[in-house]
Amino acid sequence: MPVGTQGSVKAIEQRELDEIGAQIILGNTYHLYLRPGTELVKSAGGLHKFIGWRKPILTDSGGYQVFSLNDLREIEEEGVTFKSHLDGSSHVFTPESVVRIQRELGSDIMMVLDECAPFPSDLEYTRRSNALTIRWAERCKQAFVTGSGLYGHSQALFGIVQGSVYPEIRRESARALVDIGFDGYAVGGLAVGEPAEVMYSMIEVCEPLLPGSQPRYLMGVGTPINLIEAVARGIDMFDCVLPTRNGRNANLFTRNGSINIRNAKYKTDFDAPDDECRCYTCSNFSRAYLRHLFQVKEILGLQLATIHNLAFYLWLMSCMREAIKEHRFDAWSKSMITRLRQEETPLPE
Amino acid sequence: MPVGTQGSVKAIEQRELDEIGAQIILGNTYHLYLRPGTELVKSAGGLHKFIGWRKPILTDSGGYQVFSLNDLREIEEEGVTFKSHLDGSSHVFTPESVVRIQRELGSDIMMVLDECAPFPSDLEYTRRSNALTIRWAERCKQAFVTGSGLYGHSQALFGIVQGSVYPEIRRESARALVDIGFDGYAVGGLAVGEPAEVMYSMIEVCEPLLPGSQPRYLMGVGTPINLIEAVARGIDMFDCVLPTRNGRNANLFTRNGSINIRNAKYKTDFDAPDDECRCYTCSNFSRAYLRHLFQVKEILGLQLATIHNLAFYLWLMSCMREAIKEHRFDAWSKSMITRLRQEETPLPE
Repeated sequence: MPVGTQGSVKAIEQRELDEIGAQIILGNTYHLYLRPGTELVKSAGGLHKFIGWRKPILTDSGGYQVFSLNDLREIEEEGVTFKSHLDGSSHVFTPESVVRIQRELGSDIMMVLDECAPFPSDLEYTRRSNALTIRWAERCKQAFVTGSGLYGHSQALFGIVQGSVYPEIRRESARALVDIGFDGYAVGGLAVGEPAEVMYSMIEVCEPLLPGSQPRYLMGVGTPINLIEAVARGIDMFDCVLPTRNGRNANLFTRNGSINIRNAKYKTDFDAPDDECRCYTCSNFSRAYLRHLFQVKEILGLQLATIHNLAFYLWLMSCMREAIKEHRFDAWSKSMITRLRQEETPLPE
Repeated sequence: MPVGTQGSVKAIEQRELDEIGAQIILGNTYHLYLRPGTELVKSAGGLHKFIGWRKPILTDSGGYQVFSLNDLREIEEEGVTFKSHLDGSSHVFTPESVVRIQRELGSDIMMVLDECAPFPSDLEYTRRSNALTIRWAERCKQAFVTGSGLYGHSQALFGIVQGSVYPEIRRESARALVDIGFDGYAVGGLAVGEPAEVMYSMIEVCEPLLPGSQPRYLMGVGTPINLIEAVARGIDMFDCVLPTRNGRNANLFTRNGSINIRNAKYKTDFDAPDDECRCYTCSNFSRAYLRHLFQVKEILGLQLATIHNLAFYLWLMSCMREAIKEHRFDAWSKSMITRLRQEETPLPE
C-alpha cells in the first residue's frame, strides 16, 4: 500500500496510482484527524470523496504516530493523551474514539488502537503493554460491532499483534486477537530497530496462529527483500514509505538493486532507470535526465522517481502473487533476491 | 508557451503538457548551457530527446538571464562576459556562440542575442544599446545562415525588437530587424517594470512594421488580461512563468479572476477550482482538497495547481484563436476581461 499520510501519496497523482496498479492506499488517522480534521473529511462525504480516490483505503489507528511523540503523550487505561506536534493542543485517543474517527474517515480497512512498544522493551514492559493492547482491541471490536459505516460501504477492522521480540508474548497476542475475532490481522511493532532476522522469526511465530483465510498485514515494512522474505513467511499486505521517501531522495529501486541517481556515473547514462520496467518514467526518460532533474532540484525529479519506485514495488508484489499461484515462489524468490542484492547503495534491511 | 527553464516545466509531466494542449514549450539557454551543459544535451541527441518532449521547443538566447546578473556581467562589442550564478566561473556569450549553442540544443525556434535594456533607461543609453542589439542580430543571422541543424529537423531564428519605452527606437529596431529578415519577430524588453499601458502602446508602435505573415512573440508576458490586450494588438505568441510560479504559490487563475486557494473561505468549498474547466484538477478535486494540500505542504498541491493554471492559459489562448477565426474577438475579449477582473487577489498588470 502506497502511503498517503495526509490524504496524498507524496508527489504522485491519484490517476497515476491507478495507472501503476495500486489497489489500496494508506491514510494516517493521526495526521488526518489534526489536518484537515475529521469534521471536514466528514462534510466532504468521507476520505475517498475528499481526496478523489475510488479504490480502497486503509487507515491506521493513529496509535503508532502518537507513541512516536514520546514526551508529548501519556498512556492510561482509558486511552492515550497527546499533544499535537503542530500546535501543542491536547487530544485523547481511546479505542472507541479511533473507531469513530475511522468511521468518519470512511476507510475500507480500519485498525485497532494499539501500543507499539519501543525497541528494545523489556519482557515485563512488553507483557503489560500487550495486555493493554488486547484490552483496547476488545473495546475497539465492541465499538466496531455496535456502530456502522456512514457512507453506504462496509468497513473492516483489523487487529494488531504486538509483543516486541518475545515469541511467547507474540503468541499470546495472536491467540487473544483471534479469540476476539477480526477481519484481518496485522503484525505490528516490527521494523522498529530490531535485526531483519528477528523480524522474520517473529513473523514465523505469529503465522501459524493467524487464520490463513484472512489477510495478514506486516506494518511499516520494508525493502524489496523484506517483502519477499515476509511473503515467504505468510504475509499478504504491507505499507511502507520507502518507495516514496527514497524516491524523493534520488534513490531508485531497480530489478538489479537500488541506485542513487545523483551519482556522477549516471551523467551520460541514457538508459532507462530500470530497462525492464514499463512505468511512465522508465518508458520515457533516461538516468541522465533524472540525474539532471535532481541536480537542479526540479519537482519533476520527485514525481518521476516516485512513479517508478511505486511501480517497482507493485510490480514486485504482482510477481509474488503470480509465482505463488504457479507454485514457483521459492525458485522465483531465490533468483530475485540475488538480483536485488546487487545494491549500489545498501539499504537498511 | 509553458516555461521549462531547466529542461522541465516545473511540477508537471511532459505527458500532462500534451494532455492540456501545449503546442510548444520554452527552454532557457543560459540555464541549460550551465546545467546540464550543452555537451551533455548534444550527446543525448538534442534537447527534445534529452527531456522526452516531441513537440516544438523555443529557446531564448540566454541574453535576458545574463543581463539580469547585473554585477556579474560585462557587455562589449564582441559579446557579453558573465560569471555563472552557480560557481562564479567566467563565460562569454557572443551572437555566434548563442546560435551554436541553440543549434546544439536543437530547439525549433532560436532567438538572437540581444541586450534587454533595464527599465528605466534613458534615451541615449537605449539608442546605443539598440544599435548593438541590431549589430548582434546581423551576426546571429549570418551565423544562422552559414550553419545548419544537427538533428535532421529545421530550426527557425527570431529577431527581438528592443527600444525600451521610446517609440522611435522601437520603430528603428523593428525596421532594421525586418531588413535583416527573420522567421519571426519578438517584442522584448517589456514587462520589466513599465505600466501596462506603456507596454500596450509599445506593441502598437511595433505591430505595423512587423510582417503579418510571420509570428510575433511578446516575451515574458503576462497576466490573462495582458495576453488578451496583446493579442488584440497583433501578438501571436507568449511565454510566461506566471501560471506555473503562481500555481506553486497557491494562486489559481479562473474564468472569474484569480483566487488564493490558501484562503480560509475555501476550507469547506467542495466545488472545483474553476467549475467550467475540464482539466484533471478541476474534474477530480475540490478547492477544499487543494487548500488542504497547500496547508500541509503536499507536493501534489503544486502539481494540481500547475496543471490547472497551464490548462487555463492554454484554454484562454484557444478561445482567442477561435474568436479571431469567427470574427468575434472584440466582443469576446470585452466580456472575458470583465469576468477576469473579478480578482480576489489583484495581480500586477
